[in-house]
Amino acid sequence: MTLHAAQPAPTPATLPLAGITVVDLTRVLAGPACTQMLADLGARVIKVEQPGCGDDARAIGPFVEGVSAYFMSVNRNKESIALDLKNAEDRVIFERLLERADILVENFRPGTLEKLGYNWDMLHARHPQLILASISGFGQTGPYHRQPAYDMVVQAMSGMMSVTGHGADAPCRVGVSIGDLAAGLYSVIGVQSALMRRMHTQQGERLDISMLDCQVALLENAVARLEASGSVPSPIGTRHPSMAPFDVFAAQDGRFVIAVGNDNAFVRLCEILALPALAQDPRFLNNAVRCEHQAALKALLEQRLQQAPRAHWIALLEQSGVPTGLYQTVAEMVEHPQVQARQMLTEVTTPAGTPLRVASNPLLNTTGQAVVRRQPPALDADRCAILQELGLLPAVQAD
Amino acid sequence: MTLHAAQPAPTPATLPLAGITVVDLTRVLAGPACTQMLADLGARVIKVEQPGCGDDARAIGPFVEGVSAYFMSVNRNKESIALDLKNAEDRVIFERLLERADILVENFRPGTLEKLGYNWDMLHARHPQLILASISGFGQTGPYHRQPAYDMVVQAMSGMMSVTGHGADAPCRVGVSIGDLAAGLYSVIGVQSALMRRMHTQQGERLDISMLDCQVALLENAVARLEASGSVPSPIGTRHPSMAPFDVFAAQDGRFVIAVGNDNAFVRLCEILALPALAQDPRFLNNAVRCEHQAALKALLEQRLQQAPRAHWIALLEQSGVPTGLYQTVAEMVEHPQVQARQMLTEVTTPAGTPLRVASNPLLNTTGQAVVRRQPPALDADRCAILQELGLLPAVQAD
Repeated sequence: MTLHAAQPAPTPATLPLAGITVVDLTRVLAGPACTQMLADLGARVIKVEQPGCGDDARAIGPFVEGVSAYFMSVNRNKESIALDLKNAEDRVIFERLLERADILVENFRPGTLEKLGYNWDMLHARHPQLILASISGFGQTGPYHRQPAYDMVVQAMSGMMSVTGHGADAPCRVGVSIGDLAAGLYSVIGVQSALMRRMHTQQGERLDISMLDCQVALLENAVARLEASGSVPSPIGTRHPSMAPFDVFAAQDGRFVIAVGNDNAFVRLCEILALPALAQDPRFLNNAVRCEHQAALKALLEQRLQQAPRAHWIALLEQSGVPTGLYQTVAEMVEHPQVQARQMLTEVTTPAGTPLRVASNPLLNTTGQAVVRRQPPALDADRCAILQELGLLPAVQAD
Repeated sequence: MTLHAAQPAPTPATLPLAGITVVDLTRVLAGPACTQMLADLGARVIKVEQPGCGDDARAIGPFVEGVSAYFMSVNRNKESIALDLKNAEDRVIFERLLERADILVENFRPGTLEKLGYNWDMLHARHPQLILASISGFGQTGPYHRQPAYDMVVQAMSGMMSVTGHGADAPCRVGVSIGDLAAGLYSVIGVQSALMRRMHTQQGERLDISMLDCQVALLENAVARLEASGSVPSPIGTRHPSMAPFDVFAAQDGRFVIAVGNDNAFVRLCEILALPALAQDPRFLNNAVRCEHQAALKALLEQRLQQAPRAHWIALLEQSGVPTGLYQTVAEMVEHPQVQARQMLTEVTTPAGTPLRVASNPLLNTTGQAVVRRQPPALDADRCAILQELGLLPAVQAD
């Protein structure tokens, strides 16, 4: 995160959340994405999993030698212990863990933690400084709070799908689980805020984070359009809602972006493309009329763009400062020189040692600090060490 | 954020970032989204804008009585002062503001802050505790760092578009500016981390946040699929990549989601739809074969679903615990009972007093705390008060 370190390169002890302990009951994606960020930032995260199968994500493909790549991509830097929270002995261990915890994170369906006997009033009475972050589909309140939700449900219900796609007849899911991932990011912000507030109050608090609420927050611009203009935002493919040409275009060998933000940039674009007539065309004289005639403009531009490869056009646009960029597949992205230079990919390994390339952390990638300090754990991998630490197992004797 | 307040309902003085001062040089979206979150959480945010026109977002429609709804949706809880950072007198004011600042946030193109004479080494020498958050399209390093970028450029380059849409021939932009908004959220996490680290080190640091890096981080699952299986993730409309039926379906009167996560839920679905033959069909006996035949399955399900309105089906599915949900437009979402119950919409007003409904803050909406403590400012609205506070204007005398 530090571009120019004000201090010598921080060791893990100087990671921002060093010294913070998280007990992590989360499964699948929203919760684990939150706790992976906390772990990346230096917190100790103890992942408490169901005995036998563990986190449901361990069963979600694709697999690398039998280990879920999905699981591996959101569970680095965590320890694992398998505990059955309906079993008396395991509950003792769990409660001992809570004594050492600053934060408990869970993404059960609302009511489940309470049914397990851990309601907030009891937790807060026993552990006044404990912060409880509860992540759920719809939140802990409201008429839908008991309903189960997946990413797809909150993408559909929030209107996120309704603004993504090609026309109102072809709505589209955002191709990543933005319903989960956004809730994970907001949860990290909430947890950090609660840690900062606790420094003043010496008191924990319960965070109630709803995936649906977080999707609504991301729709700010669409809500503003609806409320200001009365027109219902609908999907418009790859183009910009209020600027043109500002879209993905097809060149001879592939797609790329041209993003013209003002009339001067449009004149420069016409010069670069050697299409002087376009700059004079009354349909295209300013952004407002270009937006009205964007389909005609796109067709005329692509006619010309088809005559050369995209690298040719991108080089010319870059020279003249018109924002542009490659359209890339994920396979192209991982090899892109900027992504490589920024070290935005890193590697984790299966318990058997097989490597898997995963996305790095955008707050740590350029700091020189190790992003992966601990590999994604096998189920229950840290049981002995944790029990010893809690005084529940005799220390292993050196022979 | 607090569901069950451990303390009496916090006043603004107990908001998590109370006492923190942010000097905000950001424009348009990624930066202002970051600083709006910091402001919502209690920080004092002083927005420094270009004299004359101010933040570029003030010129972006739609407008409410001449005021940008786009601007209003990401600039609540901020003060505004217009300063020309190339003008000597204004630089004095800016530098006096920095003396009081904990955080400086900027999203200029890399190099611009340095050209203005405020490079990090100088800033850090003068203000050792100052945290500088620099948000840019590609980051402060790497071969692309000087290139301009918009949301659309990073969505295209990151592969986000390549996994969103209906088939490889129809890639699609995510319908919100997720390139900007994700960078804003990661930046808040970075700023809060730096604040926490500063408590130990007494030193500021510079954060280098790249919109492209943040998009790559959101692609974790797509990267895992590519790396584990070698197949390049492509857009698949609304359906789930590895579960079926898990998609948006058309009922008699509109679309809704059915999300079947396991074989038992599929059997329940077949019972609800009174389609017992489907549960026995060898093409649909388990999730793996259902995925292979998902198009045929979807057609058969929709044939049945067309016979009743979606409310009918949703009620039945909810009763049996199969995750489901309405597909909604933004206009439908803002009136939805869960969104209303969660108070996920709030209201800001133009300087003339006209209200505009905007998304609330998903960390504050259920806490009983006021989300809007200060209206989005008119350009330079807080000049006098700020200059008086800095001792650069005589206090106004009561007559």
